[in-house]
Amino acid sequence: MTSYVLGVDLGGTQIRACLWKVEAGMEQQAKKPTQARQGPSRVLKRIKLAVREVLAGLAPEDLLAIGIASPGPLDPQSGIILSPANLPGWDRVPLREIMVKEFHAPVYVNNDANLACLAEHRFGHGQGASDLVYLTISTGIGGGVVCGGQLLMGAHGLAAEPGHMIVDADGPRCGCGSIGCLEALSSGTAIARQAGEWIREGQDSLLASPTYSGKELTAQIVAEAALKGDALAQRLISRAAYYLGIGVLNLIHIFDPQMVILGGGVSKIGSPLFDPVQLWVREHALTPAQRETPILPAKLGDDVGLFGAVAWALDNAKA
Amino acid sequence: MTSYVLGVDLGGTQIRACLWKVEAGMEQQAKKPTQARQGPSRVLKRIKLAVREVLAGLAPEDLLAIGIASPGPLDPQSGIILSPANLPGWDRVPLREIMVKEFHAPVYVNNDANLACLAEHRFGHGQGASDLVYLTISTGIGGGVVCGGQLLMGAHGLAAEPGHMIVDADGPRCGCGSIGCLEALSSGTAIARQAGEWIREGQDSLLASPTYSGKELTAQIVAEAALKGDALAQRLISRAAYYLGIGVLNLIHIFDPQMVILGGGVSKIGSPLFDPVQLWVREHALTPAQRETPILPAKLGDDVGLFGAVAWALDNAKA
Repeated sequence: MTSYVLGVDLGGTQIRACLWKVEAGMEQQAKKPTQARQGPSRVLKRIKLAVREVLAGLAPEDLLAIGIASPGPLDPQSGIILSPANLPGWDRVPLREIMVKEFHAPVYVNNDANLACLAEHRFGHGQGASDLVYLTISTGIGGGVVCGGQLLMGAHGLAAEPGHMIVDADGPRCGCGSIGCLEALSSGTAIARQAGEWIREGQDSLLASPTYSGKELTAQIVAEAALKGDALAQRLISRAAYYLGIGVLNLIHIFDPQMVILGGGVSKIGSPLFDPVQLWVREHALTPAQRETPILPAKLGDDVGLFGAVAWALDNAKA
Repeated sequence: MTSYVLGVDLGGTQIRACLWKVEAGMEQQAKKPTQARQGPSRVLKRIKLAVREVLAGLAPEDLLAIGIASPGPLDPQSGIILSPANLPGWDRVPLREIMVKEFHAPVYVNNDANLACLAEHRFGHGQGASDLVYLTISTGIGGGVVCGGQLLMGAHGLAAEPGHMIVDADGPRCGCGSIGCLEALSSGTAIARQAGEWIREGQDSLLASPTYSGKELTAQIVAEAALKGDALAQRLISRAAYYLGIGVLNLIHIFDPQMVILGGGVSKIGSPLFDPVQLWVREHALTPAQRETPILPAKLGDDVGLFGAVAWALDNAKA
């Protein structure tokens, strides 16, 4: 008997599935567009299609488990997807149950940020680390934590929402209704919103020039302008990095990890974001060991969800 | 053969030791004054005296392990005490090694806040919880976390310093050199310092009256005045509770615990401190389950360090 697990990454724009041979690696891959706007039943159909595509020909008894990375909020115990912002129409969809019925294998669902952390722990920079903090910085800020070698789950499977750590009690309002959350200060959305505010105030910047007018302001565009030497764009990146440094330092003091890994679209800004964070940690951490905590870019890129789903299936199949 | 462990609580004012019969409970107890100002060698002598007192007559082979709760910072792996603020003259004292040599038993050292958390988990309100956050609020703010049933230690044994979580990026300077740490806003020291500032500014208060003048301002005195209806004192407690609520909410979003337990001298203020924290969590937590997280007063009082040391010895003796 040859053992396999199957990983599914349910993303806002793409559904990916892969077949993974235990002790060997990836064998088959399939991709479908999510077309999330079509609602849950069409999306579920495409998930099943992608899974069937990579399963083709596999004897049912050879499939140990299916792991699924899904946008949260979700309940990892029951595998019910609550109502993710980028899956319109989804409301308490029993994804685990649906997939178990269809494929007659154990199914393990977890949120994409937790599984991205697990992926970096198993296949990325975090291999061998007992304690690891992972942040994904894109439109929002999510994350996951490995402590004592185990993925932090919490009492209700809701652990590791570092994006909603309040770091500035007098800060701007966050989408969650709270104030001064890290997500409201250092996410791509926060960078773009602050850029818009400063430009409307009449501050001088390339971003206000004809080159950019009409384009939607994004963190990516701000980063481009910063690279071209635009002072306002540079201040925007510095500001995001400043609060990110506070958030990362807080997480170092809470978890004492071997490393902090930053992923997600905004992390691609690179040194202008990473260097101030590393410096802040070096200057403010409580102990010499923590001052040297490496702040690393994620290694797995777009594959992170898929690898995480595989790792989650492998972990649960073993347990 | 009857099995025992021994617990030692090395406090700033008192050294306590107890003998604990496995599967039964506490049998002997001893107390000595720490007299920390006399420096490490005298203090170590009194630790050994207290241990010998409770060991009296025990066959050496019946002692499974010694657990020690000590002020941090310390290295739990090596059992070396670095340089705690309330143990003057201590600098890299190899407490574990010294005790192993003296008593020929395995010795396990951990910091007092971590072990207080462990004590509440084993013997207090946290029994049976998989995930638990504990904060101790006194002159400083320390804490400990149980996640997935295990005490969070971190890569270097330095995990769980929630007192140095920055919650207000524009906040006051903290003793650690950083700004806006929870400890700089909600500790007993922070309450007293803010009271002093507001009184010096000429604000009207009982605390500025002859009843209190000459007395050292403490959080305890502020709480007394608040109970008597003093508006400034009430504002001081509200302010500490406000930032504490932010800190507790952050920890709920990070750890998703079954409960948060607050101990330490300042927690004795009771409802005026707990109620606003509970309300803040109810109004701001991301999910219904987390909004209902109970915020509980510690159960074990002055025994918390001793019980924690026993629990740590028991855990390690089993492992």
